[in-house]
Amino acid sequence: MKNVTMNELPERTRRRLVQLTQLLAQLPDEQTLTSLDIEKMTGWSSSVIRHDISVVGCNCGASNGYRVKILLQHLKSALGHTELREKKCCIVGLGKLGEALFSSDLLSGTPFKIVAGFDASVNRTEVLKADFPLYPITNLEKIIKEESIKYAILTVPNTEAQVVAERLSGCGIAGIVNYTGIMLVQHENVAVENVSLITALSALATIEL
Amino acid sequence: MKNVTMNELPERTRRRLVQLTQLLAQLPDEQTLTSLDIEKMTGWSSSVIRHDISVVGCNCGASNGYRVKILLQHLKSALGHTELREKKCCIVGLGKLGEALFSSDLLSGTPFKIVAGFDASVNRTEVLKADFPLYPITNLEKIIKEESIKYAILTVPNTEAQVVAERLSGCGIAGIVNYTGIMLVQHENVAVENVSLITALSALATIEL
Repeated sequence: MKNVTMNELPERTRRRLVQLTQLLAQLPDEQTLTSLDIEKMTGWSSSVIRHDISVVGCNCGASNGYRVKILLQHLKSALGHTELREKKCCIVGLGKLGEALFSSDLLSGTPFKIVAGFDASVNRTEVLKADFPLYPITNLEKIIKEESIKYAILTVPNTEAQVVAERLSGCGIAGIVNYTGIMLVQHENVAVENVSLITALSALATIEL
Repeated sequence: MKNVTMNELPERTRRRLVQLTQLLAQLPDEQTLTSLDIEKMTGWSSSVIRHDISVVGCNCGASNGYRVKILLQHLKSALGHTELREKKCCIVGLGKLGEALFSSDLLSGTPFKIVAGFDASVNRTEVLKADFPLYPITNLEKIIKEESIKYAILTVPNTEAQVVAERLSGCGIAGIVNYTGIMLVQHENVAVENVSLITALSALATIEL
């Protein structure tokens, strides 16, 4: 198996591989897929798919199709998902959206684990029930460093988004999933995924099928 | 002003323009920005930024910088945001996440408007309070056609995601914002934005800064 560092890859290839991994994880292990089958499921062209798959060093049966199990192993290895070490996350902002995200068990079966929650309101952190401790946001930097938390899910009100993002970038957070309606000003040492409703709808609205 | 059809543009250019529009909308109208200023805020290179901006036909002061107000007008026009007609959306799945998304007023001041909600549980559609009517999911196709709804926000349980997505694609929906943990199998006539927590975290985890 070739040793690929994912950040050497173009962004679009990386994103397709992440999505392909999720898609395959939904299928039976023993299923076999050709690049044409994958084209039908994803809308990406089969030649792009064959190229992406070759990038992760998988030559596992391009003629007869790819076995889901084998291809998934290659993809997970390239994406670092086979690492046993869990990837620690925190959720910052425990309003309705924050609560909905952590209580809906979206991360079970993944390497990601929420280990802390933060909110400006001490009432909120005392009243809410979660499988992990909740802290007042004054403790943000202290807890993130102590727990070596790497990813933050940002669900604070828009007015606080940029300030909190800057605090996160200052204490070792590597990536932020931004659910706020604010486009964050980027920092060199933090990656941001903008997944707010307005960003997603705006992106859709530019495509007329 | 050049007439640009957004779907003629490469996907990454489109996405940058959408994000740049959101970023500029947060700044004072009278502010002036150079491409270097934008590089600092976004992490994109200034030459890429100048290219993107030239694509929407804006030659509004590359030497002294871009006036936020003027650049925003060009971008909104290219993105179709100046259309007075509202873009109708529905939300499908009224669990905690669905409720959090529609009750947090994330779309105020945008052309997008949620005009209907759907859930498999009649109890849920009768008990929840919303600014728009809530329907049992059996009425999905009928209401979407009657109201000419164009976009769907998908927040159903994972097990129902693909089936509901296929119903949506069959009744005229042009785009789906997918908050479920399932990667949807694509259809030719529907665009999908995957914004689930697991997709976003997986994308971040492939970047080591």
